[in-house]
Amino acid sequence: MVEKLSGEARSAALAGLDGWSEVTGRDAIQKRFTFAGFPEAFAFMTRVALIAERMDHHPEWTNVWNRVDVVLTTHSAKGLSRLDVELAAAIDGGAG
Amino acid sequence: MVEKLSGEARSAALAGLDGWSEVTGRDAIQKRFTFAGFPEAFAFMTRVALIAERMDHHPEWTNVWNRVDVVLTTHSAKGLSRLDVELAAAIDGGAG
Repeated sequence: MVEKLSGEARSAALAGLDGWSEVTGRDAIQKRFTFAGFPEAFAFMTRVALIAERMDHHPEWTNVWNRVDVVLTTHSAKGLSRLDVELAAAIDGGAG
Repeated sequence: MVEKLSGEARSAALAGLDGWSEVTGRDAIQKRFTFAGFPEAFAFMTRVALIAERMDHHPEWTNVWNRVDVVLTTHSAKGLSRLDVELAAAIDGGAG
């Protein structure tokens, strides 16, 4: 069972991420990715889908043409957990 | 330039679709698709992505694990057009 991040562990984890911000009114983080067009946006989504499936932790995400808005939170922890931070870093490292 | 659907043409087009409903406050249609899990949901999205790209008309869509919420509207027509109805039918026929 993964636990919700809080206090210093949470601050340190968020400080290590690039371009992710906290979602207003939810214990979650978000980042917007913008691409040249739909094929590039969906190629990104496909890379993220494979990363997410391998981690068994999945994003909430919305795509409108060349834009992908990704929200990460951990439903079982009822908030932000290390899984979200790991997935965010993996997205930035291998799919962004 | 594709035109916004209205009047009888609009009613007839919507009547021909299965499970699509009008979005409150927007000239758009929506449908929720639910699957066994994330791989099945993303497989559906991949099929829809190819259909959308071939039609050069793309959905606004959100995925949360096994669920995909699809919204169709035509930005250039500032509302629902025949492109949305064609894409809805293509999704139901070839990707649902």
